[in-house]
Amino acid sequence: MSSSSQPASASVNQLDKKSEAWSALFSEPMSDLVKRYTSSVFFDKRLWLADLTGSLAHADMLAAQGIISADDLAAIQRGMAQIRAEIEAGSFEWKLDLEDVHLNIEARLTQLVGDAGKRLHTGRSRNDQVATDVRLWLRSEIDLISGLLVDLQKALLDIASRNVEVILPGFTHLQVAQPVSFGHHMLAYVEMFSRDAERMVDVRRRVNRLPLGSAALAGTSYPLDRARVAQTLGMDGVCQNSLDAVSDRDFAIEFTAAASLAMVHISRLSEELILWMSQNFGFIQIADRFTTGSSIMPQKKNPDVPELARGKTGRVVGHLMGLITLMKGQPLAYNKDNQEDKEPLFDTVDTLKDTLRIFAEMVDGITVRPQAMEDAAKRGYATATDLADYLVKKGLPFRDAHETVAHAVKAAIAQQVDLSELPLAVLQEFNPSIEQDVYEVLSLRGSLNARNTLGGTAPEQVRAQIARHRQRLAA
Amino acid sequence: MSSSSQPASASVNQLDKKSEAWSALFSEPMSDLVKRYTSSVFFDKRLWLADLTGSLAHADMLAAQGIISADDLAAIQRGMAQIRAEIEAGSFEWKLDLEDVHLNIEARLTQLVGDAGKRLHTGRSRNDQVATDVRLWLRSEIDLISGLLVDLQKALLDIASRNVEVILPGFTHLQVAQPVSFGHHMLAYVEMFSRDAERMVDVRRRVNRLPLGSAALAGTSYPLDRARVAQTLGMDGVCQNSLDAVSDRDFAIEFTAAASLAMVHISRLSEELILWMSQNFGFIQIADRFTTGSSIMPQKKNPDVPELARGKTGRVVGHLMGLITLMKGQPLAYNKDNQEDKEPLFDTVDTLKDTLRIFAEMVDGITVRPQAMEDAAKRGYATATDLADYLVKKGLPFRDAHETVAHAVKAAIAQQVDLSELPLAVLQEFNPSIEQDVYEVLSLRGSLNARNTLGGTAPEQVRAQIARHRQRLAA
Amino acid sequence: MSSSSQPASASVNQLDKKSEAWSALFSEPMSDLVKRYTSSVFFDKRLWLADLTGSLAHADMLAAQGIISADDLAAIQRGMAQIRAEIEAGSFEWKLDLEDVHLNIEARLTQLVGDAGKRLHTGRSRNDQVATDVRLWLRSEIDLISGLLVDLQKALLDIASRNVEVILPGFTHLQVAQPVSFGHHMLAYVEMFSRDAERMVDVRRRVNRLPLGSAALAGTSYPLDRARVAQTLGMDGVCQNSLDAVSDRDFAIEFTAAASLAMVHISRLSEELILWMSQNFGFIQIADRFTTGSSIMPQKKNPDVPELARGKTGRVVGHLMGLITLMKGQPLAYNKDNQEDKEPLFDTVDTLKDTLRIFAEMVDGITVRPQAMEDAAKRGYATATDLADYLVKKGLPFRDAHETVAHAVKAAIAQQVDLSELPLAVLQEFNPSIEQDVYEVLSLRGSLNARNTLGGTAPEQVRAQIARHRQRLAA
Amino acid sequence: MSSSSQPASASVNQLDKKSEAWSALFSEPMSDLVKRYTSSVFFDKRLWLADLTGSLAHADMLAAQGIISADDLAAIQRGMAQIRAEIEAGSFEWKLDLEDVHLNIEARLTQLVGDAGKRLHTGRSRNDQVATDVRLWLRSEIDLISGLLVDLQKALLDIASRNVEVILPGFTHLQVAQPVSFGHHMLAYVEMFSRDAERMVDVRRRVNRLPLGSAALAGTSYPLDRARVAQTLGMDGVCQNSLDAVSDRDFAIEFTAAASLAMVHISRLSEELILWMSQNFGFIQIADRFTTGSSIMPQKKNPDVPELARGKTGRVVGHLMGLITLMKGQPLAYNKDNQEDKEPLFDTVDTLKDTLRIFAEMVDGITVRPQAMEDAAKRGYATATDLADYLVKKGLPFRDAHETVAHAVKAAIAQQVDLSELPLAVLQEFNPSIEQDVYEVLSLRGSLNARNTLGGTAPEQVRAQIARHRQRLAA
Repeated sequence: MSSSSQPASASVNQLDKKSEAWSALFSEPMSDLVKRYTSSVFFDKRLWLADLTGSLAHADMLAAQGIISADDLAAIQRGMAQIRAEIEAGSFEWKLDLEDVHLNIEARLTQLVGDAGKRLHTGRSRNDQVATDVRLWLRSEIDLISGLLVDLQKALLDIASRNVEVILPGFTHLQVAQPVSFGHHMLAYVEMFSRDAERMVDVRRRVNRLPLGSAALAGTSYPLDRARVAQTLGMDGVCQNSLDAVSDRDFAIEFTAAASLAMVHISRLSEELILWMSQNFGFIQIADRFTTGSSIMPQKKNPDVPELARGKTGRVVGHLMGLITLMKGQPLAYNKDNQEDKEPLFDTVDTLKDTLRIFAEMVDGITVRPQAMEDAAKRGYATATDLADYLVKKGLPFRDAHETVAHAVKAAIAQQVDLSELPLAVLQEFNPSIEQDVYEVLSLRGSLNARNTLGGTAPEQVRAQIARHRQRLAA
Repeated sequence: MSSSSQPASASVNQLDKKSEAWSALFSEPMSDLVKRYTSSVFFDKRLWLADLTGSLAHADMLAAQGIISADDLAAIQRGMAQIRAEIEAGSFEWKLDLEDVHLNIEARLTQLVGDAGKRLHTGRSRNDQVATDVRLWLRSEIDLISGLLVDLQKALLDIASRNVEVILPGFTHLQVAQPVSFGHHMLAYVEMFSRDAERMVDVRRRVNRLPLGSAALAGTSYPLDRARVAQTLGMDGVCQNSLDAVSDRDFAIEFTAAASLAMVHISRLSEELILWMSQNFGFIQIADRFTTGSSIMPQKKNPDVPELARGKTGRVVGHLMGLITLMKGQPLAYNKDNQEDKEPLFDTVDTLKDTLRIFAEMVDGITVRPQAMEDAAKRGYATATDLADYLVKKGLPFRDAHETVAHAVKAAIAQQVDLSELPLAVLQEFNPSIEQDVYEVLSLRGSLNARNTLGGTAPEQVRAQIARHRQRLAA
Repeated sequence: MSSSSQPASASVNQLDKKSEAWSALFSEPMSDLVKRYTSSVFFDKRLWLADLTGSLAHADMLAAQGIISADDLAAIQRGMAQIRAEIEAGSFEWKLDLEDVHLNIEARLTQLVGDAGKRLHTGRSRNDQVATDVRLWLRSEIDLISGLLVDLQKALLDIASRNVEVILPGFTHLQVAQPVSFGHHMLAYVEMFSRDAERMVDVRRRVNRLPLGSAALAGTSYPLDRARVAQTLGMDGVCQNSLDAVSDRDFAIEFTAAASLAMVHISRLSEELILWMSQNFGFIQIADRFTTGSSIMPQKKNPDVPELARGKTGRVVGHLMGLITLMKGQPLAYNKDNQEDKEPLFDTVDTLKDTLRIFAEMVDGITVRPQAMEDAAKRGYATATDLADYLVKKGLPFRDAHETVAHAVKAAIAQQVDLSELPLAVLQEFNPSIEQDVYEVLSLRGSLNARNTLGGTAPEQVRAQIARHRQRLAA
Repeated sequence: MSSSSQPASASVNQLDKKSEAWSALFSEPMSDLVKRYTSSVFFDKRLWLADLTGSLAHADMLAAQGIISADDLAAIQRGMAQIRAEIEAGSFEWKLDLEDVHLNIEARLTQLVGDAGKRLHTGRSRNDQVATDVRLWLRSEIDLISGLLVDLQKALLDIASRNVEVILPGFTHLQVAQPVSFGHHMLAYVEMFSRDAERMVDVRRRVNRLPLGSAALAGTSYPLDRARVAQTLGMDGVCQNSLDAVSDRDFAIEFTAAASLAMVHISRLSEELILWMSQNFGFIQIADRFTTGSSIMPQKKNPDVPELARGKTGRVVGHLMGLITLMKGQPLAYNKDNQEDKEPLFDTVDTLKDTLRIFAEMVDGITVRPQAMEDAAKRGYATATDLADYLVKKGLPFRDAHETVAHAVKAAIAQQVDLSELPLAVLQEFNPSIEQDVYEVLSLRGSLNARNTLGGTAPEQVRAQIARHRQRLAA
């Protein structure tokens, strides 16, 4: 099995005009509308580097297996180097007629190096080539995203560590519940984004498997060494079934699901930032560069970035829905429907990366207003639970203590004062075991410090968590 | 109340650099990342004509109400004419710094005509301006889509009318059920697309209402004549509540829901075309220009267009999901999240228009293979129901007739023959009332002709329906 | 064509045991798991009244057309009356074995009236029967929902009319924007729910068409009078294509899309109620019966109902997505997938009805706190736009006025005062044309009253809108 | 800190009537509609065992830490044992008034054991209790699902191993592409379901973390030992941030996303089974017990189970969308919206379990028709790629070989013969290097055997894969 000795110049390049590429069977050319409808080159050209990388690994293996000659390999490597240079220089001419990034590159390669270029496609099909390219590309994007998730967590840790002792009202049902540390609140988001990072690791394992070598759907009759290609490409393994390999888009859906969850977390943080920026809260300011004004209202500073980010959650979730709908009910193996996986996947990656990057910067640009937070924490009887716990420690069953405190709160509301402003004598009417030390319990700081078990809001716990996260992220 | 007499040149154009536009309150410029994240000009510039149209109607009204001078109006009209010319010529310079289509146009207008340009924004805000522009744009797109739905219905009517007498197996559960006319089958899709057209009419009514005059959220203190603007713009009415007017995106969701249904219909037709193209059916061919070959398998002709269209259903459905997620839980009035309505809406419109256009063409390029259809109809005992009906007419209750025929089918399967191939004597064993005339009933054509009530598959009915639809679409 | 004279007792009821119903062709019984998996009777039995109604209309027509005898009709009517009584009394025995509501009723009918019952199914199939039943049922539910939408609008009008003069800060981007009337704010929701009602009217038109007479997929050989059945059932028309009629689920999707939009509106109102209940706003109280306490925090009153309602938006939107996914890519005609349309549709109806009902009650139970609202409106320079408008009326172009006011706001922020608290001399430094009358413009009430054009927040406009809506809803 | 010595009988049980439970603050009882709207007991009672298990672990820890007495612990254990017996016996009375499973059980416990029951809730809140219960429950369901995924894979391996040598046409674009082994085709699904199993493992890790000890949102002032509780419950770790712990629903979304992918795979397999059952394919039969007949067409055997399963994909995907919509934009910490997580989660679990179980059984009931498959594989020039590969081995570049074969196929189509039926002389006209041995290459079996690299369809590969999977599943 040796490659032909024909000079490159002697050969016709069937890809010179794609409309003629598979023309032998076709009696009429594609219409322009059809061309535009079915072409993907204007969005999939961003896969060019993955395509080059995958092709080079394939060619290297073909040569190692004796399927193409060393000269052919050298020619392919030379051609690909030039194509890379052309694309990076912006001088590569992308042609709609050539449908997608893969044919554009292959056609140019054959222009440049003749028959060696035509031998590159030996033992592969666009089906396994596309699947490989998308996986290679997505793997590198996941790595970028993982880095951005680290950056965002670090930004949150920084603001948390600056504000461990700052008290704001913790809400449930958006009602004042109990005082919490602002640092503790920020750490809740660190937990969320750390789970997102875990999911990215899990997804990456399933992304990083090699379809190449599955050919169109059934494998190939050439003696390929798929393990070698996987190793060259740094992949964790080889897809074990050719039909599945060319038709599987689980990895795209799974990634988009993980991205959707990350965006849901972003949307929750955004919601809070927007609330906290609102005059009725006034808990924070966001640096001006993340806000915009109004064309009509001269006084406005709008938190555009968190609002847009909250909105973009819908976008990513929509892509998830689109991808699932796309795959539902498809018979094996590859169907053209799958070409529609790319735009939602690309836009998901772009949206997530941009959003994570801007959030890391924005979190750093938050100014905290401790006084406004503490004032708010004093509204809403945030230490009522502490009084109940105090009574339990005096011997009351929790349910009875809870009921007793409800009566005390009712009395305080009637007098428009906080629990801590009720005189001891009044408190003792509700339960005679209450003593002077109750006022420590009823203070915001006393309440905060009391929640000193693992995961609680006491500053000691918060500092321990910050240290743990810092160590984890440094690893 | 008169407009200033300052010469245009004397005035500073705050929009010259948007980063300084609302600078008085802002202590730092927007970062480049933020600019890119928040800008919409590179996708919303397609609203330019709607923006011009809306602005001209607003200016006309401002002048009629004496809020701006006739000279200002003339200057605005002159400036807008030049802007239109520039955009059409491709010479208009779109600036990321100016954020969106609206500010780009307004800034250019003020460059061109000075203070008159600055007066255009009197009594309006970007909030009502954007809402108005999107509605104007969407209205014209709906009109295009309605036309394309007519074209597709006509193409379906044409192929239906050419194939009224062609018999294919009607399926339920993809099992051969009863013989149907291919024309009748095509008319099922005419029904679907006619419902889509109905929905477009309904949506249009709710799109075609005027938000302009609601200003930022609360209305305006200028004596606007909103009815005049509505009339100038050909709108059906005026939005009656300013808070709702600037924050409502129902029309976008409702349109996208209608588009999703249209795409669901497209996906069903696509599924059938793909099945019928498959060698195991072989019912049709699609013109080569709607198919593509394979990079590896030389014999392939793949129905790319219906496959892609089926896949694009996911895309549009995803946009619907995205838009709903976007709006869920938003407090009044306008929030920046809403800027995210545009890309899904634009892409929905583009996808639907392209798909409808290509389908009208493709339907016209279908070659029907009557023999393959009829052969298939003969498999699967498609006339068993006719035998049951025959027995009912002989006096059996339907349920008993059904049971009797099941036994006859079982016998025929065992002998590997069709019901019509069982001798009369054998049939009579199942029920003695069966006579020679049963064979007419058991023929495909007899079965087809028998279903001659409104909506049935008998050729007479099909022809009547075609005539009805033609008349409807001619109206 | 006459009905058999066999006595009812002489006949076998094939439906006595459904597992044997179509047994002639089947060599093994359904497994229990399969039975449970495929049966629908435990959720579709709620269609029983629609099923009875549809069957009676069908029987009436069969008799009128001479397809069954008058005696058979009478027997069917008698049997159905008894079945109705049994179901209403709770004594009807629903059998899993009989798969769905339709077979359960038909089997019982045949038990009761013998062969007449077996003749009922003449000229129809479960495919058109199910489609008819669901449409009949949904039509009546839409009528209930339309009534509930009216109730909710009326409740909103009531609270609006009690609070026309109450001023709260209108927000954009959740930043204080301009003062608005609480009544005006409530009217925004009246607009939303009135659009929902419009959509229900549109959907109803497409629901209210008759599939019956399409039989399994191809029409029937019996001389049915479909128009008569449509008229008996009060339907607007007849489905014109049998294949489409049995497979169309547009109406379910369209209804669920309309319901999703209504729930989006509910979610927006919920979000605001939750915000307003929060201690940082304190704008309203909701009657205790719509709130709950906490198992641990004795002071809590949580707005459970709006929170749940906001959450239930996801549920309905999920159903919409489920239904679309269900239909995507289905070939004609009926496929069993469609059985999955029912649960999401039923749950959508239940959720929407419950939510609308509870919201009408809850809106009535809102206590408004005008002072808290007005205090909040004074934060955030809500009248800055009014100052800009004031300057425009003095001759400044709007853009210049906007810039001038931004400087004034900056100065006021620096001094921690409202614009209205700046002395005239200070204001005049920003623009010398400012005079004493500016202070009227800078007051909340002055700002409110100024927005007195159609759709604006001025009390005069709000009252006019309330009157218009009352008249509309009375019609 | 010791528990009170009051006799149980001396104490009021505040939960006797939930409507009075937190009554001190509430001036009116909940309305019945509100009760029904907000109660969850009728769907969350399925969590009862998880609730008991979690409570016992909590009580054990409270006693170990000296927060409650050993007597209290014993009483709680005794009470819980009785409650368990009552629930298992069906005699436990579930009360709507008591809102949810947790309060129902706690109320009954206090009835049974008095104050000890009231002490159980010390240091916990419903917020962390609910989160813990759902996680415990879901963990055990994931384990069941993982087992069912194994069962289904084994069923697929069994049918694969019986049909390694059976050849069917592999399709791309539903066009005949290349011959594949039926065993190989089945293995594609084994790959899919094995990925689903991998995802379940990943999800389980994040499910299996302990929220308990986070109390309402901020942690607790009792000296809890959370690690002990985690260990008792077999959990992998402890949620490290209390705010996150009570509000996180990632695990529910992530599980539902994994379930959606599994259902997408089910939908693809269903689509193929339905196609293969269709008369135009006739590749398989499904055992009668998985099919149903028609009420009107006596000859029908419909593949109800795969159709329903395909339809149920929409249901699960809808739940995923519902859950994401639910969580989007929620501020911290717990909001009542989250109660809406349960029904979609429960239904997802039920649907997936039922479907996997029924599919394992159904796959086992598939009868393969090798002749029909092979006949179909002979249509469509399935070995054209083999001819191209043959030419490459003779020295042609692949692209030239591809073009040459296209011409040969065109000629064969014109003569209505297969490539293997063209005489050698004719083949040699296309390329003179073709020799007699080409006919081996052009046979289905030759083609099959040739694809003998890792993941390919050659029987040798298929057998190796089956062995690998068997070993993997045995582990």
